[in-house]
Amino acid sequence: MSECQADACELLTPMEIYKTLTAQGNKVRALKSENADKADIDTAVQLLLKMKCEYKKLTGQDYKAGCPPTEDITSPENGPGSEDGDDVVDPWNVTTNNAKGVDYDKLIVRFGSSKIDKELVDRIEKVTGQQAHRFLRRGIFFSHRDMHQVLDAYEKNKSFYLYTGRGPSSEAMHVGHLIPFIFTKWLQEVFNIPLVIQMTDDEKYLWKDLTLEECHRYTVENARDIIACGFDVNKTFIFSDLDYMGMSPSFYRNVVKVQKHVTFNQVKGIFGFTDSDCIGKISFPAIQAAPSFSSSFPQIFNGRKDVPCLIPCAIDQDPYFRMTRDVAPRIGYIKPALLHSTFFPALQGAQTKMSASDPNSSIFLTDTPKQIKNKVINKHAFSGGKDTIEEHRQFGGNADVDVSFMYLTFFLDDDEQLEKIRQDYTSGALLTGELKKCLIETLQPMISAHQDRRKQVTDEIVQQFMTPRKLDFEY
Amino acid sequence: MSECQADACELLTPMEIYKTLTAQGNKVRALKSENADKADIDTAVQLLLKMKCEYKKLTGQDYKAGCPPTEDITSPENGPGSEDGDDVVDPWNVTTNNAKGVDYDKLIVRFGSSKIDKELVDRIEKVTGQQAHRFLRRGIFFSHRDMHQVLDAYEKNKSFYLYTGRGPSSEAMHVGHLIPFIFTKWLQEVFNIPLVIQMTDDEKYLWKDLTLEECHRYTVENARDIIACGFDVNKTFIFSDLDYMGMSPSFYRNVVKVQKHVTFNQVKGIFGFTDSDCIGKISFPAIQAAPSFSSSFPQIFNGRKDVPCLIPCAIDQDPYFRMTRDVAPRIGYIKPALLHSTFFPALQGAQTKMSASDPNSSIFLTDTPKQIKNKVINKHAFSGGKDTIEEHRQFGGNADVDVSFMYLTFFLDDDEQLEKIRQDYTSGALLTGELKKCLIETLQPMISAHQDRRKQVTDEIVQQFMTPRKLDFEY
Repeated sequence: MSECQADACELLTPMEIYKTLTAQGNKVRALKSENADKADIDTAVQLLLKMKCEYKKLTGQDYKAGCPPTEDITSPENGPGSEDGDDVVDPWNVTTNNAKGVDYDKLIVRFGSSKIDKELVDRIEKVTGQQAHRFLRRGIFFSHRDMHQVLDAYEKNKSFYLYTGRGPSSEAMHVGHLIPFIFTKWLQEVFNIPLVIQMTDDEKYLWKDLTLEECHRYTVENARDIIACGFDVNKTFIFSDLDYMGMSPSFYRNVVKVQKHVTFNQVKGIFGFTDSDCIGKISFPAIQAAPSFSSSFPQIFNGRKDVPCLIPCAIDQDPYFRMTRDVAPRIGYIKPALLHSTFFPALQGAQTKMSASDPNSSIFLTDTPKQIKNKVINKHAFSGGKDTIEEHRQFGGNADVDVSFMYLTFFLDDDEQLEKIRQDYTSGALLTGELKKCLIETLQPMISAHQDRRKQVTDEIVQQFMTPRKLDFEY
Repeated sequence: MSECQADACELLTPMEIYKTLTAQGNKVRALKSENADKADIDTAVQLLLKMKCEYKKLTGQDYKAGCPPTEDITSPENGPGSEDGDDVVDPWNVTTNNAKGVDYDKLIVRFGSSKIDKELVDRIEKVTGQQAHRFLRRGIFFSHRDMHQVLDAYEKNKSFYLYTGRGPSSEAMHVGHLIPFIFTKWLQEVFNIPLVIQMTDDEKYLWKDLTLEECHRYTVENARDIIACGFDVNKTFIFSDLDYMGMSPSFYRNVVKVQKHVTFNQVKGIFGFTDSDCIGKISFPAIQAAPSFSSSFPQIFNGRKDVPCLIPCAIDQDPYFRMTRDVAPRIGYIKPALLHSTFFPALQGAQTKMSASDPNSSIFLTDTPKQIKNKVINKHAFSGGKDTIEEHRQFGGNADVDVSFMYLTFFLDDDEQLEKIRQDYTSGALLTGELKKCLIETLQPMISAHQDRRKQVTDEIVQQFMTPRKLDFEY
């Protein structure tokens, strides 16, 4: 047998390799019991060893007959900065060469999650008695893990809680940063449940060239924008890791529990850490994992460790929660469920995630109406329109790659209006300038309203949201 | 040139390799500028690369011309479980084949610390106006780092604080565990300074097959024994990591600072961690480092970050503090000073450290007078005496390998009496049975007195010692 066969393992999931390995083990035993030719046995054994090595590389676990791999947390396709075509998706990098953006259907296959299909959207509407949020209707939240279990329990009057977060790497937040919060606020309302929001200022300190004081200040400033999204103070706890770790022995205990059950091999496989990375980065994933367990918040859940958790987040955060879901049963906790969103495109096009450090890559929450207009119209918003009006009228524009249209799918709530824009733009009836005008007229009042609400968020209100305390919650 | 030359690097310190590397770099440049024979240049370059690789392996740093290695924290001899002759000394293993115990003079050279010589002992007596503790007089605390700087500052009325600790892996403590505490209590008294005692229950959870609850319970039980050593409650703070991490944002901030400035390469070099170790172990050294900085205890030091720290500990803990001293200046803190003790021998002989899990390996703090007598006399205490009384009278005993005599050096305070015992045993005038009787008569009242004091340590007193609070302290 050639080496190619073992190398082919790289295209298989750990479970598939596990099965192939088991088969190969049986084959070796069969050859031996038949007293087969020594060369044949040796070849079979060599392949078996190669596969075991591959299996360990992928799973961080030794192959043991009869013990299938635990959840697929480090498959090659799930690995850090791994590539499928040209898409790279991990917590620190999102790039694609496709102007339409990342291929999300492929991502679902790679990550082993489930598609949010019409059936699930319908079910959420039925359970909540509310129209689904536009992010669900339009596939912006497109993937999930265990959402049906959450709904099953909810229908039996077993509540759950929401957990989302933000890495506060600068004072400036852009509209893309609001996506998980807009959606989480909706979930909080329609399910009437508590929410915890983790501000990973410790992560930013570890990854960026920032002081602890800067990271903590960004936490507070970002919390103002988050609060301005309209969260219910009686049901929402926002916490800085730097503060809460030093305020909650229960939280630290859960961090240590996770840290005991994850090896360097595993985080290397999941996040691509290397031996040159600092030990803070290496152990940080446990800190992002811990809020997935209700016992991290005894003040909210009266010490209950069995309240299920639902995490709405962008798909690039999934590696953290694949790890969390792998660990959960081993430390006696429930696996968190997830709802994954697509990425919000940069003004320059959907190939990259926006960057808070490039002021022209997006609309910032501090932008004036004039700045919004300039960014959209003048130079920065990638267009799917044709070069001349004549050509545009004749051939129509391409809404699929047009950033202004993409932004409208995020922020224009009226489905009919959006569909009409799409049709008119595609037919050529609507010109690029007119499309941009629609977007400007959607964004300007939205951002102004946000700024007005943010001004109302006093230091006392921030303090209130960030104080560990009892929340309205019945289970 | 043969490979042997590069392999010889393994016997050199990082600084020595650095110098050899610099010389080799110069040689390569010289050969090139002379247009020397290509084969010669290639050979020289290959050796250079090999040495660079070796350098990185040892230091965790890339070789840069003009930048000598920072403090020698991962020299091959300092490495985990490294061997010099047959001595192995790291936080988890201490073994030697020499019946006299570990060769401590060699250890000073390997670890790059300084010997506690007569001059230093005299100086401590002069500064404190007290006779030196028997552990100093007898070389039981035998090695130090920067003790002269601590005394320089103290003479200028700049105070310091003490930091020591214990890993609570079981309820049972033995007499050997008391060594650092007996000595630290003396230091606290003669210098009149505050003391913090770290109970690394998180470490024990990560390393052992114990629950968090068990580790925390051992912390409280061990704290009782520590308090029974007579510490001043107004100057002593005892803390459980599991509790204090969740009570002090300042402590967690220092942990994260250290975690940002230590790489996996470094802890691999220092502690011998592997890719299969859990991420909790990998990041734990930062938690043992953090109490070395006064800003970890704002309640004690009013937020001052410049109060020097002196750490009395057994020499096997030095790797943690080599790392700490390497990091300190890079995060704007003072390097802690250290006083290192030898190991307390097991009853079975000085080749190994005692084990809390083997009840016959030492005298436990819970032993009855009868148990003490049985352990010492009957079977367990390794003797340096001869096989028969006649032989013993004729040739004398060997005090250097006799565990009863070693124990007396730890616990019999009277220098003259101890010296007389040594001489009489060596000459044969004192029989093994008589020597053992001396030890029994020393240990029995000592352990009884400890048990009496421990009984006085109520839950309230433990609570008081373990509450973060202001201590008596002037700086």
